[in-house]
Amino acid sequence: MDTLINKIIEKGNPTVAGLDPVLDYIPDSIKEKARLEYGSTLDAAAAALLEFNKGLIDALCDIVPAVKPQAAYYEMYGWQGVKALCETIEYAKSKGLYVIVDVKRNDIGSTAESYAKAYLGETEVFGKAIRPFDAHAATVNGYLGSDGILPFLKNCNEYDKDIFLLVKTSNPSSGELQDIRTESGRAVYIEMAELISDKFSGDKGMYGFSRCGAVIGATYPAQLSELRKMLTNTFFLVPGYGAQGAGASNIAGAFNDKGIGAVINSSRGIMCAYKELGMRQEDYAIAARKEAIRMREDILSVIN
Amino acid sequence: MDTLINKIIEKGNPTVAGLDPVLDYIPDSIKEKARLEYGSTLDAAAAALLEFNKGLIDALCDIVPAVKPQAAYYEMYGWQGVKALCETIEYAKSKGLYVIVDVKRNDIGSTAESYAKAYLGETEVFGKAIRPFDAHAATVNGYLGSDGILPFLKNCNEYDKDIFLLVKTSNPSSGELQDIRTESGRAVYIEMAELISDKFSGDKGMYGFSRCGAVIGATYPAQLSELRKMLTNTFFLVPGYGAQGAGASNIAGAFNDKGIGAVINSSRGIMCAYKELGMRQEDYAIAARKEAIRMREDILSVIN
Repeated sequence: MDTLINKIIEKGNPTVAGLDPVLDYIPDSIKEKARLEYGSTLDAAAAALLEFNKGLIDALCDIVPAVKPQAAYYEMYGWQGVKALCETIEYAKSKGLYVIVDVKRNDIGSTAESYAKAYLGETEVFGKAIRPFDAHAATVNGYLGSDGILPFLKNCNEYDKDIFLLVKTSNPSSGELQDIRTESGRAVYIEMAELISDKFSGDKGMYGFSRCGAVIGATYPAQLSELRKMLTNTFFLVPGYGAQGAGASNIAGAFNDKGIGAVINSSRGIMCAYKELGMRQEDYAIAARKEAIRMREDILSVIN
Repeated sequence: MDTLINKIIEKGNPTVAGLDPVLDYIPDSIKEKARLEYGSTLDAAAAALLEFNKGLIDALCDIVPAVKPQAAYYEMYGWQGVKALCETIEYAKSKGLYVIVDVKRNDIGSTAESYAKAYLGETEVFGKAIRPFDAHAATVNGYLGSDGILPFLKNCNEYDKDIFLLVKTSNPSSGELQDIRTESGRAVYIEMAELISDKFSGDKGMYGFSRCGAVIGATYPAQLSELRKMLTNTFFLVPGYGAQGAGASNIAGAFNDKGIGAVINSSRGIMCAYKELGMRQEDYAIAARKEAIRMREDILSVIN
């Protein structure tokens, strides 16, 4: 996690901007330009997505340390959208940002290896090594246990990358499975956290955090504090701030007594700030920057 | 599930061929043709994948009712690979096959909606409805609970599609989380199964199965039989036969007393049959057909 933590310290900002570019959020001027060039096609949608993202990245890259594109919002525009995801990652990296690709992938060992190569590592094509997406980090769902997770960590070690494993997710129904009490009296999400601390805690970086982080929703502040105490070597990716309802007071427990240990995500709150601020669509990037600065101050106000 | 079950009855074959085309499996002649056209690039890899898949589909389409492309093996070749996935789905459908896209997607409600649109439904682009991948079914990981699953089922109902929810996966470490006993004495995978029968069992088709199926590994035959008795309205997608180690005797319990209720997957066993049969690489499609016929007879021998 050193790359991420260094960027957080450098920017003085433990937040990440989600890049979930639904066409509805994108200013008409960008969409119209794409439609004129490509017609009513997925190519046009993908072109609009990429231009929208570049505007956000340009406006945010000196404020936030990281961005988190959510794969679903690209895949819904077909392979053309996935191409825009790939180009978004590349552009964000060129602006010095740490990129977490939010894919929540999961599968049996041999297949997890392929996902790990896709998003973090490299693929061999006729003797040439190519990095298909080459993000800094990916999110992973650990329902299949360690042999679906270890291939990701192998690639993390090899290519200096990180993963964030889903522990307690931010959505309203996350408790249906995750909060069930097990025989030992612990919740299922605690068992998942145990899996992290037992099996994946090796290889600490300069700040004491391993390459296996955890996703824990800001919408569950009690669990966030509980897990912070339990997983001392695990860095947290915390979604749920802003549009999903959590405020700064909800995330204070995500940080340790040194004021590190988490990166807080806001997606719609930043992308759609122009609506909240009553600004013109065309000024979406200026509005996003304003909101990113406001969010930074809001989060910093609750950290020791 | 009626579309799938009708095709199974029509072909007299409750199996699905996995399409997980790693470059290493693909005959040199196909790869060399792609390399000459596109160089050592992801475009070349994608072209080879697609040609390999078309050969398999042509050889299998009168034998098997369904194919299951595994997204990881396309994503590892970048957006170009994802384009090959899209084209594979389209080609398989043109040959009358039911297509299960094995994506194991999962996310919070709004994001799950985008994944559902991508793989099963349609996306609106400048007033035009486009179906980005348009498979018949997708696999879904339910760790996030019902609000990550319901958007998929909404699209299933709207577009006559199905999903298969991970319950007990085929991999060696699946028990690390899935087998943990809960306070009620049941395993976590049983709690996941309960979620299916409680919340997603509505809208039965003509054979009595709902649109929400379950993934249960052939490598766990006792659990397969147990879940068959418990989930009478749930159709099973059963991986783990062949290369992962399970034989026909392991999957008998997946079927009900009418001899229906499951579709058994083999991926490497079919794709790489030419190795097992000592045939030339170039004859991979003939070998795959032989293995698909052998597998059909093997599976039918254990069904009532």
